[in-house]
Amino acid sequence: MLNQKRVVIDNVNPQLNGGDFFIKRVVNEIVNVDAHVLVDGHDIIAASVLYKHEKAKVWKEVRMRPTFNDEWQASFVVEKQGFYTYKVEGWVDYAMNWQHGIERKIDDNQHVNSELLEGIEFVKTIAKKATNIEKEYLDRLAKIFADANAYDDAIKEAISEDLHKIFTKYPAKLLANTSKNLKVYVDRLKARFSTWYEFFPRSASETEGVHGTFKDCERLLPKVAKMGFDTLYFPPIHPIGEINRKGKNNTTEAHEGDVGSTWGIGSKDGGHKDIHPQLGNLKQFKSLIKKAKEQGLEIAMDYALQSAPDHPWVKEHPEWFKWRPDGTVQYAENPPKKYQDILPIYWENKDYKALWNECLDTMLYWVDCGINVFRVDNPHTKPFYFWNWIISEVKQKHPDVIFLAEAFTAPKVMARLAKEGYTQSYTYFTWRNSKHEFIEYMNELTQSELKDYMQPNFWPNTPDINPYHLQGANESKFIQRYALASTLSSSIGIYGPVFEQMISDALPGREEYLNSEKFQISQYDWNKENKLTTIISKINLIRHENEALQQTNNIKFCHIENDNLIAFYKWNNDRKNELLIIISLEQYYAQQGSVQLPLADLGIHQGHQIQVRDLVTGSSYNWYDEWNFIELHPTLPFHIFKINK
Amino acid sequence: MLNQKRVVIDNVNPQLNGGDFFIKRVVNEIVNVDAHVLVDGHDIIAASVLYKHEKAKVWKEVRMRPTFNDEWQASFVVEKQGFYTYKVEGWVDYAMNWQHGIERKIDDNQHVNSELLEGIEFVKTIAKKATNIEKEYLDRLAKIFADANAYDDAIKEAISEDLHKIFTKYPAKLLANTSKNLKVYVDRLKARFSTWYEFFPRSASETEGVHGTFKDCERLLPKVAKMGFDTLYFPPIHPIGEINRKGKNNTTEAHEGDVGSTWGIGSKDGGHKDIHPQLGNLKQFKSLIKKAKEQGLEIAMDYALQSAPDHPWVKEHPEWFKWRPDGTVQYAENPPKKYQDILPIYWENKDYKALWNECLDTMLYWVDCGINVFRVDNPHTKPFYFWNWIISEVKQKHPDVIFLAEAFTAPKVMARLAKEGYTQSYTYFTWRNSKHEFIEYMNELTQSELKDYMQPNFWPNTPDINPYHLQGANESKFIQRYALASTLSSSIGIYGPVFEQMISDALPGREEYLNSEKFQISQYDWNKENKLTTIISKINLIRHENEALQQTNNIKFCHIENDNLIAFYKWNNDRKNELLIIISLEQYYAQQGSVQLPLADLGIHQGHQIQVRDLVTGSSYNWYDEWNFIELHPTLPFHIFKINK
Repeated sequence: MLNQKRVVIDNVNPQLNGGDFFIKRVVNEIVNVDAHVLVDGHDIIAASVLYKHEKAKVWKEVRMRPTFNDEWQASFVVEKQGFYTYKVEGWVDYAMNWQHGIERKIDDNQHVNSELLEGIEFVKTIAKKATNIEKEYLDRLAKIFADANAYDDAIKEAISEDLHKIFTKYPAKLLANTSKNLKVYVDRLKARFSTWYEFFPRSASETEGVHGTFKDCERLLPKVAKMGFDTLYFPPIHPIGEINRKGKNNTTEAHEGDVGSTWGIGSKDGGHKDIHPQLGNLKQFKSLIKKAKEQGLEIAMDYALQSAPDHPWVKEHPEWFKWRPDGTVQYAENPPKKYQDILPIYWENKDYKALWNECLDTMLYWVDCGINVFRVDNPHTKPFYFWNWIISEVKQKHPDVIFLAEAFTAPKVMARLAKEGYTQSYTYFTWRNSKHEFIEYMNELTQSELKDYMQPNFWPNTPDINPYHLQGANESKFIQRYALASTLSSSIGIYGPVFEQMISDALPGREEYLNSEKFQISQYDWNKENKLTTIISKINLIRHENEALQQTNNIKFCHIENDNLIAFYKWNNDRKNELLIIISLEQYYAQQGSVQLPLADLGIHQGHQIQVRDLVTGSSYNWYDEWNFIELHPTLPFHIFKINK
Repeated sequence: MLNQKRVVIDNVNPQLNGGDFFIKRVVNEIVNVDAHVLVDGHDIIAASVLYKHEKAKVWKEVRMRPTFNDEWQASFVVEKQGFYTYKVEGWVDYAMNWQHGIERKIDDNQHVNSELLEGIEFVKTIAKKATNIEKEYLDRLAKIFADANAYDDAIKEAISEDLHKIFTKYPAKLLANTSKNLKVYVDRLKARFSTWYEFFPRSASETEGVHGTFKDCERLLPKVAKMGFDTLYFPPIHPIGEINRKGKNNTTEAHEGDVGSTWGIGSKDGGHKDIHPQLGNLKQFKSLIKKAKEQGLEIAMDYALQSAPDHPWVKEHPEWFKWRPDGTVQYAENPPKKYQDILPIYWENKDYKALWNECLDTMLYWVDCGINVFRVDNPHTKPFYFWNWIISEVKQKHPDVIFLAEAFTAPKVMARLAKEGYTQSYTYFTWRNSKHEFIEYMNELTQSELKDYMQPNFWPNTPDINPYHLQGANESKFIQRYALASTLSSSIGIYGPVFEQMISDALPGREEYLNSEKFQISQYDWNKENKLTTIISKINLIRHENEALQQTNNIKFCHIENDNLIAFYKWNNDRKNELLIIISLEQYYAQQGSVQLPLADLGIHQGHQIQVRDLVTGSSYNWYDEWNFIELHPTLPFHIFKINK
């Protein structure tokens, strides 16, 4: 095919899999686009980023600027939820070329009569689309360029800044070329900035031995809201299977009164669209959702695609499960391990379309009940294409819905789930513990391609994970873990009240909780307040008030000469909110070190006075040097400094 | 769209621009393919690379092996010229899954009766496509698996290596997924391995002041062949324009007898399809091509798309040039510079289709005359899409044709020309001079994506470039430059006899030759032989005999504790040809250093004796250590060691 275009565009970034997947942003976030824009020869070229919301009719345009070595760059802000399309357009700017040529010839004392005649064409073409005032100006230029007696005036006008501006404003874009269309999906702010609290509703009662209810949960809403959380996540609230129900501590036999695993979903009382009777009814659940919203809390529902053996699906849709030659149904197993209380879905079944639609229907049912946040259980054990489809279907109708992937799995699987559409993902933060590990992991999350499609959600603990470093840890360690999670990542969560009450008894030699609430009801003093609850509340307030903590990718680690101290600089888009955070990783001893300020990023020189104010204690320090002494004690093992220049 | 497939394939490499461009190889070269192959859950998966020559009907298959973290790898060899398509296929291996599950359950002392019944399905399915012997075996298995009394036999058979092999041989590939199709273009060996010699035919006469002819060139063929070159490249041999002809040393006025620039193509004697009368006629040129071929030399033609003002095109196709408002034709300029003897083509012209076809026609005309190699002048000043089209058109009919881009231009433009289809490219080697520069540049060429589509051609000098480091340089420096070019790159070239006769007089302060042959005839002693011609001949012979020097990407730099010594390891595909090359970058003083052997690559341990033999001098050394002492003198400033283990 004969293609007369001369500009070529290559390497447009961000771009996932050649445009097969979309990148993600939240409302009012910036998309920085860069590309290689090339032309043969020496002509002056220009380029723009064109972008358009899916519901807009016309493209918006922002001109790119060349940076280095044929690389070009521009940014745009995404203002609305939904898909935007963006692409790069490039063209030879013949008018600029003409002006630039005249300038250089005049500098070389060449005559440019013929060039001036050529210029008439450029100004006449632009005059057709210019404003009246501009048209007047351009008509005058056309006359001067044609007038051999006005040569001195003509060259002055030809190389004038005014004409340059007109050329910039009205590019002819002859033979312009464009890159392929790329997409960015824009979510609401919460997709990026969220603070989660998880508890088991069945443990919400104040009375020992009594099954908690939604009413009990309502009572706890102010406590959770006051601590500064915005998302309250419940493990599954559906009927719990009775066949093969698990006993306490994951024993294979349930005894009288054992409540079973909340993830063993489905019984004679119903399935994924039903509520466990001991928690309450749908009306009460809806009331809870409403009351929570009034306190600034969204209820996150657990979405766990699996069944107890007595789930209604098993009778109604036997084909959705795998039946063995001996006539029994296949329960979950990862040989030699067996999970007899759980039937996995048989995704290869022939009736999969009905299955997928029922899964979608279930989700839409709860969205209609007021749920806008789903924490998806083990998404990595269900097909990738299924997630792509269901998330896309839900988002088309309900763009506010947020999906958190409990993707505790291999790195590429975790990343792929994010590419398929998950809003947020659990991460390896739970196990990262040394300064080196944090820096390496944060660089992976925020400097690689992941930054464009995976929003991490940092959890210091979950009902499934009682990490070794928290087992028997002191208060300082718990504070450190919360401070790390909440300043390294803009989305975080804790499993409480286990976390803030520093409960860490474990099954011996394992990263699992002893007497796990997964299999029994726990009794808590729900009114207890301690140093940890105070600090969590304070940090959450600081996160709320400082935009620098509301995104994850804006991080730069600072040198500090102590492996037990980690320091990093965070900033918001307009750099009016700049923080320096220093956290001790040592729980028993005070740590000292000198931290290096990121002078270039701060736009200051050594010797310039800055003030840093600790947002927790309120103390201020004046610093003049690039390197500044820090000492952190286990009693308050971190600083969140606000920088005033 | 509901897609029931479970395996997903990501990040298939090599892959250029999401498959929009093809990668390149030569006949019998290897394509190493890697990809991320993922599945939800814990199932065992398998993957293959499928590949197919454009003229083949069926895909060939090579199984991939997992390496690390869901990455998979396989290789295939391209045996024929033309396009191959390749893609990755992945699937869940349910049979393997079944076998693996049984193994782990048996280890855990579980009963597997039901599993054995499931196995019947697997063996029956395979029996349908198996050989008779295999079928017999599989039928027997089906019976045993069904026989409750044969339990012990059955489990032995179920987990047997024999059954594992059958499963591997006959994968069911249920719900298999594939990546998109990617392409590799396969050239003849010369695309990668070539040794070029350039001279000006008009300087080929033995008699002073007489214009050289093709007959003179024929006389010189044995000399060029004897030195070990395989490609003889001539600057343009077309009629030279008379209007605005340049004088000696690029002066704007030609005097009586001035021959003009060979790149000022076209006169009353004809254009791009014609021959400059003083060189001879077409018959003599064809004879030269034939005689050259007999000596193992291919004639490379210069393809320079531009015209002298008196080129026939200007009258026949005035629309192919740009006409200025004053009625004159636009000559080449890069303001303030002017090139009045050259008219650039006006690529934006409306008659561009006729122009492109004439360009193609010209090339095909010379191919019909026996030319299979084109050195394209300034390709970066003609449109990228034009090159893509014309190279593809020529290659479809004449896959042997090789295109060398004289792309002395910006890095991304150089790379893009290679992507568009150029076989080889001139490079920045001409200006690279320090150890650090060589290592950095070689890493860029051989470790980045460039390795898959750009074959560098290293030229120590060209008629356009007399680099500062060669101006006034001594013999040792010239030897070094040839040794560097010819061992770092498998394609190289020199402009002679200027290079081997160490002529380096320059225009003052510029990297240009004084009295350049571009504008006048030079007189040489064509019979002169010197140390440089001896060493060039020897090195070219070594290149011919050692596969390790016939590709560029197989390079690994070795530590050597002296910045004036550069050392690297090269190998061929089966590692039977392994070289260690050490070159001094210092022209006046002897240099010493200790070179570190790449033990891991050599597959040996410290203490293992190896013998290194200098392929130039024949001297051998026995080495036992990882670090070995080297001393190089300016008289012979390099070693090409063949390693014998």
